[in-house]
Order: sequence, then C-alpha cells, then structure tokens
Amino acid sequence: MNPKICLLCGGVGGARAALALAENLPHDTLTFVVNTGDDFRHLGLEVWPDWDTLLYTLSETGDAVRGWGREDEGTRAMEEFRRLGAPDWFHLGDRDLALHVVRTWQLSSLPAHQVAQQTLQRFGLNVPTLRATEESLATGIRLRDGSLMDFQTWFVGHQGQPEVGAVEVPQASTAVVTPGVIDAIQECDLLLIAPSNPYLSIYPILEVPAIGQAVQARKAHTWAVSPLLDGKAVKGPLDRLIANLSDFSGQRAVLDCYAAWSQKLLLPGDEIPGLPQDGPLLAACRTRLGAREQRAEFVSDLLDVWERSTS
Amino acid sequence: MNPKICLLCGGVGGARAALALAENLPHDTLTFVVNTGDDFRHLGLEVWPDWDTLLYTLSETGDAVRGWGREDEGTRAMEEFRRLGAPDWFHLGDRDLALHVVRTWQLSSLPAHQVAQQTLQRFGLNVPTLRATEESLATGIRLRDGSLMDFQTWFVGHQGQPEVGAVEVPQASTAVVTPGVIDAIQECDLLLIAPSNPYLSIYPILEVPAIGQAVQARKAHTWAVSPLLDGKAVKGPLDRLIANLSDFSGQRAVLDCYAAWSQKLLLPGDEIPGLPQDGPLLAACRTRLGAREQRAEFVSDLLDVWERSTS
Repeated sequence: MNPKICLLCGGVGGARAALALAENLPHDTLTFVVNTGDDFRHLGLEVWPDWDTLLYTLSETGDAVRGWGREDEGTRAMEEFRRLGAPDWFHLGDRDLALHVVRTWQLSSLPAHQVAQQTLQRFGLNVPTLRATEESLATGIRLRDGSLMDFQTWFVGHQGQPEVGAVEVPQASTAVVTPGVIDAIQECDLLLIAPSNPYLSIYPILEVPAIGQAVQARKAHTWAVSPLLDGKAVKGPLDRLIANLSDFSGQRAVLDCYAAWSQKLLLPGDEIPGLPQDGPLLAACRTRLGAREQRAEFVSDLLDVWERSTS
Repeated sequence: MNPKICLLCGGVGGARAALALAENLPHDTLTFVVNTGDDFRHLGLEVWPDWDTLLYTLSETGDAVRGWGREDEGTRAMEEFRRLGAPDWFHLGDRDLALHVVRTWQLSSLPAHQVAQQTLQRFGLNVPTLRATEESLATGIRLRDGSLMDFQTWFVGHQGQPEVGAVEVPQASTAVVTPGVIDAIQECDLLLIAPSNPYLSIYPILEVPAIGQAVQARKAHTWAVSPLLDGKAVKGPLDRLIANLSDFSGQRAVLDCYAAWSQKLLLPGDEIPGLPQDGPLLAACRTRLGAREQRAEFVSDLLDVWERSTS
C-alpha cells in the first residue's frame, strides 16, 4: 500500500522530485503544493516561475538541459523587448510569454486556483497540484546594507550576488491559502518537503500561518529531502544563502533548517557520517533526480524508508 | 517647394501611401494621422492593427507578402494559445505579441500618444505620426439583422462575411483627439486622404467631431486617393462594404464617399471616363503602391497634380 504523499515544493529540485513521484507512484496518492514566493509581475504579466517549472517539468515540455523554460523555445519576443527598450533582465521565451499572457487575462475573471487548474488540464496533468496561496507572496531579499530587493531582481537581475541579511515574506501573514492545501497536509500519510531551497522555496510556504500550523501538527509525519549533493547545491543560490544565513554549512545547515519541521531528513548515505543524531532522524536516500532511472531510485529508497518506518 | 502634407490613413493601403510619401519627400513636410477605429483589446492586450501596420511598413520590418504582421515572425505563442484553449481567431505572431505586451504595460503609466511616440523612436521613424484619438474607437459592424458585432470579430473572426447594414463608431463623439492632430490638419498645404477603406479607416477618423470639423474647413485643400484599382479593392472587405452600403459601385462609389469631404479624387487615368464631373475634380494618378518604383510614380504624379493646381 503506497502512502498518500503531499509534497511541498518549489524550484527545479522541487519540480524534479514531483516528477519522480509522478513517474513512479499512482497519481491518486499524490498532491503537490507549490511555492508562490517567487511569483511576480513583469511587463504587466503574472509570472509564476516555480509553478511553471513544475508545469513544464511534469508535462515534459520543459528544457531539460537548462532546467527552466520550454523546449523548442523562441527568442523573437525578447528581441522585440530589447528593440522597444523594455526591461529584458528576465528572460521570457515566446511560448513562456504566451502562457503568462493567457494567465494574466484569465486572472481578470477567475480566481488563481481555477486558472491554475485549467492550465494543468490543458497540459494533460492529473496529479492534484495546488499553489500554496491564491496571491503571489512576493519574497523580498533584505540585503546586508538593510535595503530590500524583490527576489527576482536579486536572483535574476543581480545574479544572486548581493549579500543577504534575511529572506522576508511580508504577505505571508495575510495570504489566502488555496482551497485544498490544508486538507492535503492533514490527510496525507507522508508530508514530504522536496529537495528545494529551504529559504526561498519552502519557508515562504511555511510562513503562511495556517499552513505553518498545519505542518507543525503533522511534524511526526513530515520528512525533508536535502537539496544538497556532496554538501553543495545542485544549482541556484542555496550555497550563498546558507553561507549568509546559517550558523552551519552543508548538510548540517539543512538539518538545522528543518529541525523544527520534520521528523526525518533524507540524504545520500555517504553524507550522513559526522552529522549530529540528536535532531531529525537521518535516512539514507539516493537523491540525484536528473535522469529517469535516478528518479526511480529515489522513489524506491523513499518507499524503503517508509516501509521500515511503519513496520 | 514641396507642399506640407497631412495624410489621413488606415489599413494596408494607408500604410503603403505613407511609405510612398516617406520614401520620396522630406520627412519634415509630412504628418501621418492614423485610424484608431480597429483597435481593440485581445487577451487583455491593446492591439492597434492600423498603427502597427503603418509602423511595420514604414520601418520595413513588416511582412511585405502578407501585407500585415512582421517579417521573420514566429508562431510559438499561437501554438501555446491553442494548447491553453485561449481565443486563437486573431493571429498574434511572437514579435507582434511582444509589442502588444509592452504597449499594454506602458499604457498603465503613460498616455497613448507618448507610448506611440516612444515606439516610433524605437523603430527609428522620424515622420510625425499621430493616432487620431487617444482612445481606441472600437468600430462596430451593424449587421443586416440589426445585431452589432465588433469590427475585428466581423473582419477576422467571420472573415468579413456577414452582410453589413452600417458601420458605427459610437465612441467617436466623445473621443479625445491626440495632441497635434488638429494643428496638422489646419497647417498643412495638402490634406490627403489615403487609399484606405473609406468606411473602416477614414470615416471613423472623420466622425470625431473636432477632426471632422477641421477637415471640413480644409475641404478646398483636401484630396482623396481612391483605394480601388480597376474598380476593385486591392484587398480587404471594401468591395463587400461598397456593395452593402453604397448606392453606387466601383470608383463612382468612392467618389460619392468623398464628395462631401474633398476637392479632388485621384485615381488611375483610365478609370476616369464615364465618371460624373460635377463633384470633386478627378485627377489622373498612378496609385499602385506595391513596389518602390510604383510608390515613386505615385508621388511624382501627386506632385504634378499639385503643381498644376497651384500654378
């Protein structure tokens, strides 16, 4: 009997973990809850990077090499943005742009969760996939000098270079949780935190009070998957954030991130020695997710740990 | 001494006439006033078909074969619109879409005439080119059965097939005229009506009370160029509209359209015999505008008629 799994996710790591589950487990045992912290408006359009990365990854319409955007993507719209002197620091492929245009148009008459569901259907996806909140959470980066920069400006516009003092999600406290999210957290057998960036993809979800409380209540059933391999981020700004924000480094920092939230941390077995054993339990799991067979190994290990934990 | 020309224009014929003038006359003697009657919102975006046709034609970035849209245009966004079940009856190329996105975004903080001027500059155009009105005029097609259909739905969505009872421009009476339009009409030596569709491209401009009055006051200096060649429309729905809306046919119908507005009608010399001589004066002029040398011949003939009329 497969466990009912609710996955909290964001970013490329989150999308690959979701794909791993969708490829290897019955879809009616799964729910994905997606970070809304890096959503933003650009050129008047609603851009939902984490949602779209998941959408493109699950539907296998994404660019597998870059890890973001679409395959067979075009750059004609970007050329015109440059011609027109419009901001071009955020890359929008022609197909990607069309999705943002339709989404923005649909949001003028429908709530975000309905827009999201219609899009899933149109991409042929049937795993229940929910944005954490109806609104975008507009994560802010508080720089060391005290100034506030919105996440995409920091991450894309400045290549994640400026030193970070804190990650702030001011809208989290008043955000409306998407219908179904709390139920999914409460009713799953295993609440899985994807190998996403804790600071940017997971904490923004947990900072929504109703979600954070629901997750706290399920701590005994919550496992986190470490996003680090060989002690380093696979990609993205996580190493920088750990260096700026954690008292620890490498897997020890991830363990610290999730100590208050999860009962287990899953990470490669060879990275367990030397880590403290007094917090979340450490469980060996192959967490490379780039190739289909690796994703099958990940799910196989996950189910092994699950079976041992329930027997 | 070249006359100062103000051109009222819309559609492909209007864009080609504007190109003819721009290719052959000093730019500081020209002003183009562009129809706003077929502008509309599509997928939440501001689409200005006549303006864009002129923009692409003058900047030679247009698709010369189709007569609309961009050269080196892509279809990836349209493929995504179809995937998403969004309306796909109006074709939006990838480059074209980018312009609509930027325009819509700019209009959230700037008036339309500033957005338009920025776009001209970005396309390297220096002939003063003004939208007739700040707002879109949203031309409506009153069908024979009494129902009202917006112009683009009739023209593109229904291929201009439904029989037309009247063309209506309800917003014209309250529209704000773009700064500079009235001055251009009053200060030109020659007010030229382009070989555009009278019903769809020119009347919507003239129905704006301040513009119509200014043009009336310049009737002695107003010439119209017939959009018909061999008595037929070069392209578009003009033949259908003449059949539906005029008591006459062919060049006789065009003459009737402009009898109240212009002092001369310019048309190919071999089409003059048989037309009545009691209204606007008829002047022979080569009006084919498809090729550069044809456009030079058109301007040469126009200037010949001008010189004879002033000597």
